[in-house]
Amino acid sequence: MSTAGAALDRWRGPPDGRRRAVIESVRPEIDCGRFAAKRVVGEWVVVEADIFADGHDRLAAVVRYRRADASEWTETPMEPLVNDRWRGRFRVETIGRYEYTIAAWVDRFLSFRHDLARRDDPQDIAVALAVGAGLVEDAAARAQGEDAAELLAIARRLVADEPLEGRRELALSERLLVLMRAHPDRSLETRYDKVLPVVVDRERARFSAWYEFFPRSTADEGERHGTFESARKRLPYIARLGFDVVYLPPIHPIGRTKRKGANNALASGPDDPGSPWAIGAEEGGHKDVHPALGTLEDFRAFCAEARRLGLEVALDIAFQCSPDHPYIRSHPQWFRRRPDGSIQYAENPPKKYEDIVPFDFESDDWRALWQELESVIEFWIAQGVEIFRVDNPHTKPFAFWEWVISEVKRRHPEIIFLSEAFSRPRVMHRLAKLGFTQSYTYFTWRNTKHELTTYLTELTAHESREYFRPNLWPNTPDILHEYLQYGGRPAFMSRLVLAATLAASYGIYGPAFELVENRAREPGSEEYLDSEKYQVRRWDLEAPHSLAELIARLNRVRRENPALHSDWSLRFHDVDNEQLVCYSKRTEDLGNIVLVVVNLDPHHVQSGHVELPVAELGLDAAKPYQLHDLLTGARYLWHGARNYVALDPHRSPAHVFRVRRRVATERDFDYFM
Amino acid sequence: MSTAGAALDRWRGPPDGRRRAVIESVRPEIDCGRFAAKRVVGEWVVVEADIFADGHDRLAAVVRYRRADASEWTETPMEPLVNDRWRGRFRVETIGRYEYTIAAWVDRFLSFRHDLARRDDPQDIAVALAVGAGLVEDAAARAQGEDAAELLAIARRLVADEPLEGRRELALSERLLVLMRAHPDRSLETRYDKVLPVVVDRERARFSAWYEFFPRSTADEGERHGTFESARKRLPYIARLGFDVVYLPPIHPIGRTKRKGANNALASGPDDPGSPWAIGAEEGGHKDVHPALGTLEDFRAFCAEARRLGLEVALDIAFQCSPDHPYIRSHPQWFRRRPDGSIQYAENPPKKYEDIVPFDFESDDWRALWQELESVIEFWIAQGVEIFRVDNPHTKPFAFWEWVISEVKRRHPEIIFLSEAFSRPRVMHRLAKLGFTQSYTYFTWRNTKHELTTYLTELTAHESREYFRPNLWPNTPDILHEYLQYGGRPAFMSRLVLAATLAASYGIYGPAFELVENRAREPGSEEYLDSEKYQVRRWDLEAPHSLAELIARLNRVRRENPALHSDWSLRFHDVDNEQLVCYSKRTEDLGNIVLVVVNLDPHHVQSGHVELPVAELGLDAAKPYQLHDLLTGARYLWHGARNYVALDPHRSPAHVFRVRRRVATERDFDYFM
Repeated sequence: MSTAGAALDRWRGPPDGRRRAVIESVRPEIDCGRFAAKRVVGEWVVVEADIFADGHDRLAAVVRYRRADASEWTETPMEPLVNDRWRGRFRVETIGRYEYTIAAWVDRFLSFRHDLARRDDPQDIAVALAVGAGLVEDAAARAQGEDAAELLAIARRLVADEPLEGRRELALSERLLVLMRAHPDRSLETRYDKVLPVVVDRERARFSAWYEFFPRSTADEGERHGTFESARKRLPYIARLGFDVVYLPPIHPIGRTKRKGANNALASGPDDPGSPWAIGAEEGGHKDVHPALGTLEDFRAFCAEARRLGLEVALDIAFQCSPDHPYIRSHPQWFRRRPDGSIQYAENPPKKYEDIVPFDFESDDWRALWQELESVIEFWIAQGVEIFRVDNPHTKPFAFWEWVISEVKRRHPEIIFLSEAFSRPRVMHRLAKLGFTQSYTYFTWRNTKHELTTYLTELTAHESREYFRPNLWPNTPDILHEYLQYGGRPAFMSRLVLAATLAASYGIYGPAFELVENRAREPGSEEYLDSEKYQVRRWDLEAPHSLAELIARLNRVRRENPALHSDWSLRFHDVDNEQLVCYSKRTEDLGNIVLVVVNLDPHHVQSGHVELPVAELGLDAAKPYQLHDLLTGARYLWHGARNYVALDPHRSPAHVFRVRRRVATERDFDYFM
Repeated sequence: MSTAGAALDRWRGPPDGRRRAVIESVRPEIDCGRFAAKRVVGEWVVVEADIFADGHDRLAAVVRYRRADASEWTETPMEPLVNDRWRGRFRVETIGRYEYTIAAWVDRFLSFRHDLARRDDPQDIAVALAVGAGLVEDAAARAQGEDAAELLAIARRLVADEPLEGRRELALSERLLVLMRAHPDRSLETRYDKVLPVVVDRERARFSAWYEFFPRSTADEGERHGTFESARKRLPYIARLGFDVVYLPPIHPIGRTKRKGANNALASGPDDPGSPWAIGAEEGGHKDVHPALGTLEDFRAFCAEARRLGLEVALDIAFQCSPDHPYIRSHPQWFRRRPDGSIQYAENPPKKYEDIVPFDFESDDWRALWQELESVIEFWIAQGVEIFRVDNPHTKPFAFWEWVISEVKRRHPEIIFLSEAFSRPRVMHRLAKLGFTQSYTYFTWRNTKHELTTYLTELTAHESREYFRPNLWPNTPDILHEYLQYGGRPAFMSRLVLAATLAASYGIYGPAFELVENRAREPGSEEYLDSEKYQVRRWDLEAPHSLAELIARLNRVRRENPALHSDWSLRFHDVDNEQLVCYSKRTEDLGNIVLVVVNLDPHHVQSGHVELPVAELGLDAAKPYQLHDLLTGARYLWHGARNYVALDPHRSPAHVFRVRRRVATERDFDYFM
């Protein structure tokens, strides 16, 4: 026996072998708890787990949660679903980090109660009641005050000289169950072996409409180069369009060495302004503003006006340098040199990007580099910026981003980071997991019904939705998709409706978008002709073909319909036409249901029958319900699951319906809510 | 900057921020590495992971593995598949525990090589070759002897005054790649943050045919109660049937208090032998043998004869007591008392099992209880037993099993534990994960084509196959399924073929099975009439309807066909008849392919067309191939994917084919292998 005794000493299992409950397959749990699930203030965290024990005993379980900086845990009960799956939930109330775990225990009182209800032998019942009395007495010892007294009284009555059936009823009473649940015996409870993190953001992290534009292209008549001041005058227009976020490409001094000319020409003329992403010149680097745009004070005035109009300013974080960046002289150790002593520019052979110099993150001086880059973000936060769109994060180490985002958010939990990684799936997911608040997606390249359905279902229904918040862009300064090049105004309209209603966060690069700019540099290219990346443009915002009115209406619809404020309720519905895509979003209480039908064919009228899950949407299959088109104001009466739709792309390629249930009929009128 | 500096000190990420490779989603990895994957000696462990880094650099990765008791790691390279998924594998050579992990690194030479092949600017190529020469020189410094000299020579030639193209060819040469791969720069490699376990068993853990029988029912003519000696005489018969394991229900003294009579009667007569699972009487407990069966010496002689015949003996571990068990007096603290002072018998209200007393695993003296139960297993190992079938493990704590199995296997890695848990899915899986070598399944209740296809696909293709090794039983002393009760001899035949060919491990409870015992205690019950659990039976092994010959042939087919020795290759094939099920198993090299077709209808001839994936099976769709029925010896020529099958249940309800490819045609003869 001494061998076995020694073995037991070595046993590294649960410290008390009597803890019989098992907790496994906890969700959400991202990479074994290595990464946090994401929520915004006011949302629920629904926690599920497989919880069971040996034998037939009944279990109880709770979710334990707290703010990560709190010492006390709060608990909320879990309920069994099927097949040993349990569920509980808690609401996150403030921004910052939360954490949660699970506790479960074999509950002898619940087992006693369950068995007692099934016993048929009077002698057994009498013995069982004596056992139960003991359990209730123990609970009384754990309780205090009135509860203790009441429990003690019940324990005595359970074994009193009274008829059996009355005592059994007392043992099975709801009142005793409530008391016993309030004072359970948790001495042998099992704690889940991990504490799991949640990052809680402000609501903008989940629900946002972005507008990207180049300040230098806002020049007044007669001026060559726009400024923060001229850009400031553009803000009321953007506010009227209903956006939440104005995002500016880099606003820093632009390098002159190897500066690109118009249409990405290798040579530039003296008037070419260069790419804003070639950051750094003798006028300064990442903490400076381009003199042509104005001063830091002008930038702050721009931000103040944005705030006044209800807009937030998002800055571009592009951690790369022009060959003229001050860092190259002040910190040569942060860059790689070629054998000929020249600085190593960016390249992806045979392509060269000689106007850009990447940081060498394998530098021996990486710590100082990380700190300096973090200080860039802190600098702009100090100017009042709370949102950053990060350029090509997938070309800098994942460990750096994880560190810098967690550091910044620890001090400023309100900061939002949008990851501009158009890369492979695993890479994009890793960036989202390690901390980016929102992520660009493949939406721009998903244009058919099958592509949209598959991809958006993945984004909104798969486990990755716990950490990957999509932000859909129909265009960017880098991407003018073929669908827009050849589909004309209807294509822009349908892509706009899709982006704005499929995802709670979306954005456009304007005014190119609303002005239906669809000229590519050359056939087969996704680059814009006369791209603003390399030259100043002038836009006629008053052009009659502008989509400004549609955009303003869509953004108002988004604000007014809470169903569109989140992504998880997205469901696609069958339409018997491959060119028509139909989907809905809804609030949990079904109080707000938005149904969208989009014609993906920008050239022809398409029609078909939509098939709706009426019961799931809370609709009475036997009665008509009203579809109110929020874009046109038109109202339609639909009956049952199957209804007809036709969409002419040249009038409006989409319906955005609010679904209204009939609530009452009085005389000749139907009322819908 | 001091704030950021402090932040960097607090950073708990990778100790060196320059380690850029990321390793995630490693498979196999069971519950975050909490449990081991299972293999048998000689098998491969195929390890996959998502491996990637920022940017465009090339990566290299290795699987690192070792015996858990070894200090040195062995490494084997991983290769990229698609979408950043990598795969490597290693073979486990000895029984015991192994462990593995992954290392990956950004390989500058591979990046250099990849880029060099794509460069088109001669000046760039020259500069790149100088960079490459530096990398090769560094490798020379890491290498020794001839490799070092050769690398140094190559480094010099790369920058020698020679034509560019020749130097580029040298840089891209296979020889240099081999040398550089042998001496990589791993100074900034990433190690996966977990070391993952594998339990390696002997082959019997994966491939086994079990025969369960009651020794007491082997009495010679004129005797009332069989003995180890009479059971020993039964062994040659079992060996002729081709089984590997003979499994005996408990062989211990049987309690008298509340002993059950024939057909589970509450009262027993003086001649009723009682249930072998009511363990313990004044003659002894779990470490004693029932005097009616003989002595411990007789048992050892039984085991010796089994060994001589190539059979292993499996004992039943049933950790429960009769009310007469010596433990109840020697260790009263291990049992629960009722308020009236009586011992708490087993119950599941309203059902009572008064002949059985469970251990109280919540006893304060649980440590001594665990140790004593472990010593029971050790006792029987000392008698030569190496396989245990564990009765109802799901009614004892999971932590106990995890401890006792790991303790026993640490000292005796050859021991096999079969879990007899007919319980909920999560419970059965947990037992398999925590250490049981094999598991009973729901096979007994899966009788239709849909049920069989779904369930066996789950068992053999889902991730749980890493730890859950199924053992299929068409019957047990507790379960006589309706399908057998009403399907007659053809039902027994088809269930036998299914069990023996769907899974590498299967078992029958005989002689009830081969003698087609199908009388249930009452309609709707799965209990046998006159069950051997409560009475001694006498079996006529020579009965003409015995399935002994079919069993012997099936077990020979199993042994001769390595495709049937494991489960992971199982694939179901379409048949246009719901009563016909068709599936195949194959060796990795396709050298052995077994194709099975079973008629699930025990009453009528069923026919249909089988659809085979001929290319996947290595067959030439344009040429005939031979199907050799290993049960009847008949040979059929099939052509292409779709072929006709008809099965008469009254002749043979199944084909077990060896698929033979045509290898050559000489004159009039086709040769098939």
